[in-house]
Amino acid sequence: MNESMRCPHCQNEITAHRNPVPTVDIIIEIAGKILLIERKNPPHGWALPGGFVDYGESFEQAAAREALEETGLAVTGLKQFHTYSRPDRDPRQHTASTVYTAQASGAPQAEDDAGRAALFTEGNLPPLVFDHAEILADYYTAKKAGRGRPDK
Amino acid sequence: MNESMRCPHCQNEITAHRNPVPTVDIIIEIAGKILLIERKNPPHGWALPGGFVDYGESFEQAAAREALEETGLAVTGLKQFHTYSRPDRDPRQHTASTVYTAQASGAPQAEDDAGRAALFTEGNLPPLVFDHAEILADYYTAKKAGRGRPDK
Repeated sequence: MNESMRCPHCQNEITAHRNPVPTVDIIIEIAGKILLIERKNPPHGWALPGGFVDYGESFEQAAAREALEETGLAVTGLKQFHTYSRPDRDPRQHTASTVYTAQASGAPQAEDDAGRAALFTEGNLPPLVFDHAEILADYYTAKKAGRGRPDK
Repeated sequence: MNESMRCPHCQNEITAHRNPVPTVDIIIEIAGKILLIERKNPPHGWALPGGFVDYGESFEQAAAREALEETGLAVTGLKQFHTYSRPDRDPRQHTASTVYTAQASGAPQAEDDAGRAALFTEGNLPPLVFDHAEILADYYTAKKAGRGRPDK
């Protein structure tokens, strides 16, 4: 899709190609629980740790970096879970998230864009922003089926 | 990462955020063979059918659209395989490809960006562009292990 923007200097119209924006999110397991962060920025609510992928960075590097930046934890055993790309999954713009699973130990600390960090069990999840409730439902379904990824 | 570009009207510098560009590729099975297309545009060579995801389109919609546009075939049983994001995988720019598997029947026709379309077996693959040789190696490894996705 081509998008129109205006030059901030001369106000003339410039056409640029617009793509969905790639992000990563990480399902971090600590002693059988899932680490979630409470977002400081809109949309407010609980979410998986994650963020935008930088140009020149692999998604695996982005996932490890975002986990560290938002929780202070160095994750291990990073594995790709699934990519979620529904255009309405993020109310701000069309983002597509590649979700990873990983393990960590120690006490998470809310850092960077995170207000609080806390551990949750499947029966005790808080209200989640974006499509993160669907992602965690897929995660628990796959885990019970002995799979590392959703069957879709 | 922020990128500088120049306004084509006034030549002043404009800063914009730059992201990896999302693409999709499709491993299409027809009667046990894999459908590949010979690219009309650089880089020249054989490749999986695929292309850029449009803003506002899910990756699944993009995969079905690109398969149809490049081969003339309506695919069935579309399933997500894996997302490949190494920054040097595409010599033109940093693209990240979410790869799907699907089935089709009938005779493929090279359309749109494709010069030729042909069916190949694992022992008979042509030289492939991008990281498509790695993708197909992962595909055959996963298939032999009875998995629908790579273990990474």
